[in-house]
Amino acid sequence: MSDLSETIKGLKYDSSGLIPAIIVDHRTKQVLMMAWMNQASLLDTINRGKTHFWSRSRQKYWMKGEESGHTQDVKAVFTDCDMDALVIEVEQHGAACHEGYWSCFYRRLTPDGRLEITGKPLFDPKAVYKNKK
Amino acid sequence: MSDLSETIKGLKYDSSGLIPAIIVDHRTKQVLMMAWMNQASLLDTINRGKTHFWSRSRQKYWMKGEESGHTQDVKAVFTDCDMDALVIEVEQHGAACHEGYWSCFYRRLTPDGRLEITGKPLFDPKAVYKNKK
Repeated sequence: MSDLSETIKGLKYDSSGLIPAIIVDHRTKQVLMMAWMNQASLLDTINRGKTHFWSRSRQKYWMKGEESGHTQDVKAVFTDCDMDALVIEVEQHGAACHEGYWSCFYRRLTPDGRLEITGKPLFDPKAVYKNKK
Repeated sequence: MSDLSETIKGLKYDSSGLIPAIIVDHRTKQVLMMAWMNQASLLDTINRGKTHFWSRSRQKYWMKGEESGHTQDVKAVFTDCDMDALVIEVEQHGAACHEGYWSCFYRRLTPDGRLEITGKPLFDPKAVYKNKK
């Protein structure tokens, strides 16, 4: 087993074997999305240089952009003091959000409880995800 | 019940009633830490203007900086497309990491499996957390 596999094994995963991965733009550092990785997807993310995840809702291994073409080139991977979370700096192709926004965090929760849209859609999701609603 | 409470209630929480909160510096957008919030801690975070969390390891409600003085002033709260994660922009006092670093993500995981320290400690944690190891 490589040193990389050993280090990945040494991170802390939840009871489902998952660790949260915060994906950020490598230039601006803006958070683009948060998703979950297991050991295999983190290993592929580093070895193949494209982000791979485990989808909890679909119970499925996936590469970001496999359907949309909006892949993420990995620039650097960081872990935190507790070794139970990751920050991954990427070069984003297209947009990170499946709803067409650059970042999934395109809505601000205002102090009076409104959800205010602060991002602008870069594409029409209906045109990109042909097989999805 | 206020509109804010209703909106907070409408977010998606895991089976323990928690939602991940990614805390970022409001100026640089750098990720400082990730922690977990329940509905009460998110409501206090917005109403009181200081970040509050739920500690899974200690099973305890806490305000960031209550021991160290390294509080976080809330500038803006964002939620994502799935409404199951938060990004909170803050003004950080002191340092976010209890180990003395500005960001908890101070170690880079290199492709050959090393954990390379990329941050510099801003304080000696032993001097700040007197009651902790």
